[in-house]
Amino acid sequence: MKSDIEIAQSTVLRPINDIVRQLGIDPEKTEGYGKYIAKVDISAIKEEAVRKHHLILVTAISPTKAGIGKTTVSVGLALGMNAIGKNAVVALREPSLGPCFGQKGGAAGGGYAQVLPMDKINLHFTGDFHAITSANNMIAALLDNYIYQHAADGFALKEVLWKRVLDINDRALRHIVTGLGPRTNGMIAETGFDITPASEIMAIMCFATSVEDLRRRIGNILLGIQYDGTPFYVKDMGVEGAITVLLKDALNPNLVQTTEGTPAMVHCGPFANIAHGCNSVVATRCALTYGDYAITEAGFGADLGAEKFYDIKCRKAGLQPDLTVLVVTLKALKMHGGACYDKINESNIDCVKKGMWNLDKHVENLRRFGQTVVVAFNRYADDSYEEMEAVRRHCEEDLHVMFAVNDAYAEGGKGAAALARMVVGAVEKEPSKPLQLLYKDEDSVEDKITAVAKKIYGAGKIVYSKKAKQQLQLIEQLGISRYPVCIAKTQYSFSTDAKAYGPTDGFTMEIDDIVINNGAEMLVPVAGSMMRMPGLPKDPQANHIDIVDGNIVGLS
Amino acid sequence: MKSDIEIAQSTVLRPINDIVRQLGIDPEKTEGYGKYIAKVDISAIKEEAVRKHHLILVTAISPTKAGIGKTTVSVGLALGMNAIGKNAVVALREPSLGPCFGQKGGAAGGGYAQVLPMDKINLHFTGDFHAITSANNMIAALLDNYIYQHAADGFALKEVLWKRVLDINDRALRHIVTGLGPRTNGMIAETGFDITPASEIMAIMCFATSVEDLRRRIGNILLGIQYDGTPFYVKDMGVEGAITVLLKDALNPNLVQTTEGTPAMVHCGPFANIAHGCNSVVATRCALTYGDYAITEAGFGADLGAEKFYDIKCRKAGLQPDLTVLVVTLKALKMHGGACYDKINESNIDCVKKGMWNLDKHVENLRRFGQTVVVAFNRYADDSYEEMEAVRRHCEEDLHVMFAVNDAYAEGGKGAAALARMVVGAVEKEPSKPLQLLYKDEDSVEDKITAVAKKIYGAGKIVYSKKAKQQLQLIEQLGISRYPVCIAKTQYSFSTDAKAYGPTDGFTMEIDDIVINNGAEMLVPVAGSMMRMPGLPKDPQANHIDIVDGNIVGLS
Repeated sequence: MKSDIEIAQSTVLRPINDIVRQLGIDPEKTEGYGKYIAKVDISAIKEEAVRKHHLILVTAISPTKAGIGKTTVSVGLALGMNAIGKNAVVALREPSLGPCFGQKGGAAGGGYAQVLPMDKINLHFTGDFHAITSANNMIAALLDNYIYQHAADGFALKEVLWKRVLDINDRALRHIVTGLGPRTNGMIAETGFDITPASEIMAIMCFATSVEDLRRRIGNILLGIQYDGTPFYVKDMGVEGAITVLLKDALNPNLVQTTEGTPAMVHCGPFANIAHGCNSVVATRCALTYGDYAITEAGFGADLGAEKFYDIKCRKAGLQPDLTVLVVTLKALKMHGGACYDKINESNIDCVKKGMWNLDKHVENLRRFGQTVVVAFNRYADDSYEEMEAVRRHCEEDLHVMFAVNDAYAEGGKGAAALARMVVGAVEKEPSKPLQLLYKDEDSVEDKITAVAKKIYGAGKIVYSKKAKQQLQLIEQLGISRYPVCIAKTQYSFSTDAKAYGPTDGFTMEIDDIVINNGAEMLVPVAGSMMRMPGLPKDPQANHIDIVDGNIVGLS
Repeated sequence: MKSDIEIAQSTVLRPINDIVRQLGIDPEKTEGYGKYIAKVDISAIKEEAVRKHHLILVTAISPTKAGIGKTTVSVGLALGMNAIGKNAVVALREPSLGPCFGQKGGAAGGGYAQVLPMDKINLHFTGDFHAITSANNMIAALLDNYIYQHAADGFALKEVLWKRVLDINDRALRHIVTGLGPRTNGMIAETGFDITPASEIMAIMCFATSVEDLRRRIGNILLGIQYDGTPFYVKDMGVEGAITVLLKDALNPNLVQTTEGTPAMVHCGPFANIAHGCNSVVATRCALTYGDYAITEAGFGADLGAEKFYDIKCRKAGLQPDLTVLVVTLKALKMHGGACYDKINESNIDCVKKGMWNLDKHVENLRRFGQTVVVAFNRYADDSYEEMEAVRRHCEEDLHVMFAVNDAYAEGGKGAAALARMVVGAVEKEPSKPLQLLYKDEDSVEDKITAVAKKIYGAGKIVYSKKAKQQLQLIEQLGISRYPVCIAKTQYSFSTDAKAYGPTDGFTMEIDDIVINNGAEMLVPVAGSMMRMPGLPKDPQANHIDIVDGNIVGLS
């Protein structure tokens, strides 16, 4: 089979204006970026259509390091919908340049279930991440300059809460000291860079519903606390307008197409371990405006992505998913079956069966939210029929959950027609109940954390560090305990131990810190040490990306 | 009069495709970024047309801190050409976000002589600077990772020559320490960030003539020297292909329009003090392909921008300017006349006359290159007629140089028709001689520096620091003394003292360092301490930029 980039390059694309016309979007509300990408102005969202159409979430069991093909299944399902005559729009997250040049590769699907033009989407695309990087770092420069220029007036922060970001895997920037040299280089500070998807600006972009809302949220970003306890916000510098100017175009979601020319929105929000990991609310609403079915994804396993999708994104945006698709692969099941990581490519039905507990727990969790669940088996070329059937039987006979195979990677839309038919049938006959959120806005922060940790992760006990306890007090003081919690946790295990592949029920969850995202209006309890800036491997993907005869190679 | 952004917002723009058609560019070789911006593929450049058409350089006397309106005159001249029925294309440099949010403002012209859409051009535009920032910092991350991953194999650099960049004025990043914390955060290093226009990648983008040439130059970037003296290049990591992939779209110049709907190319290259400060060779060639007259600018005063334009850009690209326009303002003349900075807005003919020496020296310098010179008086609303006439008389009677007034700021094209007529007439009747470069490729680096310093700056003596002497040896060793020199020097004085506003003939020039830009194929002797990362003022422009009723305010 051809490589992802070969398939991408050999696909004849439709002019994006054709897709704009097909969807019935007012062309005046779009702006082309080349022939095959358009930004859609958020004023093209129609509330009535959003409420009428069907929202499908694609999530997954706990993934392997190579991922699990959630984007491929999301795109595949949209292709399958199209193959059975339904009008579907898929809404995905935007890839980050860091992993693209590092280890994991891009995030535009795979095989015959990709969003295109894949090279542009994986590289600079329409510049959204660059705008977010600029806005984030402009705030940092303005803040450091404010501290420097107002030091003589007695202004100082006890702790600066704002860090810089780059959309690059750069281990050397995790922990740095700035402001060295002469006094005109500013005050010396210990700080660091995160990767751009970890920026609060990214979360704000995911939740903002208008330019005014964006401006308000930016103004509310908490930058630090003064010595007398007064919080210091972006609006205290008076630069929220300037930062909004940097982001206003980036707020409009991007319209592209799949390998079969069907519409796809790709906008913001990767990384569900350190962030909420969903595409923007405006992209999902736009997909719901113009698709009878809007298919969206949430990052990593359902313990992270799906929980955050329901409890944060749906809560904030008033969205009601009609159904949730849970992606499963043999590799991931084997990983959870206690087989060692380097054997997940071998046939071993025993390991598959031993790994079913992970699937069971995710299904149970999704049902807790009132969701109708369809398990989508994401097929790989070397999967054994016997192993696949074991998963099917387990789903149908033991779990009484619907099961379908996704073969869109190898076959495109026709490989996902059965899955699409099953999803459409279920949405019509037995759609999800109204969303049952895990906690109420007025619950205490500790109760919110407990609800997620015990009900979803299966934690036995929750322990707060001294720092986390201080943050709980600060949250109380600032009067922001109504915000939802976005727990930062490893994606490889239900627990906080990235190497605990087996069942972990009753584990003790340690909360090291609770980061306040006052502009995004969420609290980020950090469970275990989370890496907010990845590193590059010894043989990074950058060593394999090139231009050969005018064509890009090495992107996937 | 309306503000720049008000004029910009009230101008009805032509669809960019109209301008593409008007110029006769193959639409298949363009890619729209919204309705009013297009990238033009470099394959649209036609060598024969480049050689046939006329190239006009716009430069200036030593500028004030507020600039001197060179971009306004460049755009104005193009408008004036249009007003007298000539087909002109203006080729400008791309603005940097840093000064836009800091002190100096944007760089898209002013008044009724702007390039539009001004807000997009001044903000993210087509993402060229973001691509350059990404490419620069990806190299830094790959290099630090290489050092980290290969330390156990004994790999180490005596000195790392590569720094990171951001397109932001951020004083705190000038001098930093990276790699703190656990060993997995990489090796501890003392380093810093420059502003993006100072990146060697920017210079490479300005000189590259094809994607292959870009790839070759990136591979040749010198990153450091190993302990055994072996140079270490980007190509030694094998990532020049990946970095080229990040830059290949950015290499295509951007087509926009002026306030009067005439074509403008805007591409790369600001900051003529720390860089060569000209737009890209491909943008100039593209303007020359489609305009009978291509009008281009070089940064800051003629001692910096114009010298580098001739000796570096024209030398490398084989360009022959037909004429040079020298911009003069009363404010700048007064500054050089010894009037204190805060009085340059007052009427004072004595100061004007005392400042003429600066104009004289620039005219003399331009003539040394064989250039026909037209002095363009860039008129401000409060300029006194008497003072202006004094400048005219001095030009015509004492210097025997052509003189015309540019009023395009207030009047658009008709305010520059006289200037345009004079330029067209001079190009036809007395065009410049073949370009007389200051030095030959085979001259020694010291001779090259001496040629520029003595002939253009009027230096008496040149002193090399120990570091600069070491670099001279290294350059010898690497066999790259054939490269031209791009002297980094203050723009406010002919000398290296930014506060020496009066005549400085015979000053001693100290060369602190010679930076090797092996990919850009130039050497950067640093004269005095040059700031490669600006800071923000106490009241940065960011405090005044906002969105009011959906419109951007505060950009200029």
